[in-house]
Amino acid sequence: MEKFKRNERIGAIVKILSDNPNKIFTLSFFTTQFNAAKSTISEDLIVVKNVFEKLQLGKVITISGAAGGVKYIPKTSKEENEEFLLHLCERIKDEGRILSGGFLYLIDLIYDPNVVAKIGEIFASNIDYSDVDYVVTMETKGIPMALMTAKAMNLPLVIIRKNTKVAEGPTLSMTYLTGTSSKVETMSLPSRALKPHSKVIIIDDFMRGGGTIKGMIELMKEFQTEVVGTGVFISTVKPEDKMVSNYISLLELDTSGNEIVAKPNLKTFINEYRD
Amino acid sequence: MEKFKRNERIGAIVKILSDNPNKIFTLSFFTTQFNAAKSTISEDLIVVKNVFEKLQLGKVITISGAAGGVKYIPKTSKEENEEFLLHLCERIKDEGRILSGGFLYLIDLIYDPNVVAKIGEIFASNIDYSDVDYVVTMETKGIPMALMTAKAMNLPLVIIRKNTKVAEGPTLSMTYLTGTSSKVETMSLPSRALKPHSKVIIIDDFMRGGGTIKGMIELMKEFQTEVVGTGVFISTVKPEDKMVSNYISLLELDTSGNEIVAKPNLKTFINEYRD
Repeated sequence: MEKFKRNERIGAIVKILSDNPNKIFTLSFFTTQFNAAKSTISEDLIVVKNVFEKLQLGKVITISGAAGGVKYIPKTSKEENEEFLLHLCERIKDEGRILSGGFLYLIDLIYDPNVVAKIGEIFASNIDYSDVDYVVTMETKGIPMALMTAKAMNLPLVIIRKNTKVAEGPTLSMTYLTGTSSKVETMSLPSRALKPHSKVIIIDDFMRGGGTIKGMIELMKEFQTEVVGTGVFISTVKPEDKMVSNYISLLELDTSGNEIVAKPNLKTFINEYRD
Repeated sequence: MEKFKRNERIGAIVKILSDNPNKIFTLSFFTTQFNAAKSTISEDLIVVKNVFEKLQLGKVITISGAAGGVKYIPKTSKEENEEFLLHLCERIKDEGRILSGGFLYLIDLIYDPNVVAKIGEIFASNIDYSDVDYVVTMETKGIPMALMTAKAMNLPLVIIRKNTKVAEGPTLSMTYLTGTSSKVETMSLPSRALKPHSKVIIIDDFMRGGGTIKGMIELMKEFQTEVVGTGVFISTVKPEDKMVSNYISLLELDTSGNEIVAKPNLKTFINEYRD
């Protein structure tokens, strides 16, 4: 079997952990992979932990016990979040984005793989998912960021459909009222998509009144499932009273004046690195 | 500024390259980041290249010239693909997945962030995207794997909607005939979603007759856009004559007999590592 030098092992361990956030790798996994002694791998892991810490990329932690090992927990820094979100705000303010009806064209941003990868890491740094079973979103625009959040949290993704003509076996459907336009819409989810008595986090791209997310929370109740956290990418300043209370948003948008004002929602990050 | 040891720099470079496939990083980026000399970084990069090569994780290549630097190109190995796809086939064969109407319940697999991350890397290893501007998919089930493919290729993602009531400015809509059920469906895409004269790759989760993908190719023509490659996760054995010819599929599915037969489509990988 091929031998690895220390430098190479460290690079390889970083790659493996980084590609698989929140997944536990045993010491034996690495000793087999690199044909090295446990003591050698333990020394490697100290260096690896330093790399993540110095670059503020998150933490590599050791879990003791029979099912023990190491895992990588992504955590973005407050400074990095601010810089990233300020840059997004600059792009959002572009007048060319204003569509008739006061909508904003944002899909180039929220479908951008690198943007949503970062958003996913930010959500994973600011929502407690220690006891969570699924990340839930509703089609379509929230899917990319919800997927990246699920990847960072190492959780399965569940997508609620707006269509009832979905061939996925028995399906639970529900009507709900969207907050602003007060339209009646339908959402549906296959019965087997969630184990009963699960805990979930909701991720969505945009929240105005909160009607859609309130509907999702109610749908989850029908599945005997509890929503323990909600993350939205953009929330609007108005209406101030949302139909949902327990949520974080990354950007606040004010379209009430003559120009678009988009700001990082810094209160979201106050408690970052709280643990 | 904090100093990094060689080991730490190597770990950090691996992390940065791995998180940003197909993005070019200049030598100066690393010298600034790590407060190190160019010659030092060059030596680090030799080790980094070895790591990726020994682990068969892809290649780190040097691009010379003014816009030069290094970039990481993900490439999965044939053995790894086979093992991964065989494992998926085992999970697909489960009788509990058969739904009335002969459909298969697959969303737990195709929404799984780790499964689609791998699928994305496999597509990026087997479809030539050297001259491509976008990855295109149609909502909903193909989105997670298309996003991960776009991430691996470092390309923006474009999502065709089935709904025409989409508030994204002027939108081009088109009807098409689905292959099997011969239903008339609608697909639509905002006019500004693609620059004219672009080249795209289509990614989708499932192909039976190929009607949907044929429709997507036609929609692309309306955008003066050329489809230079197509990747589907699962294609069915029947009908043998698809409405699309230039595509690769990762799994072949035969549901014509008494049991589901799912097989890795090994001819897809014959030319892998051809360069």
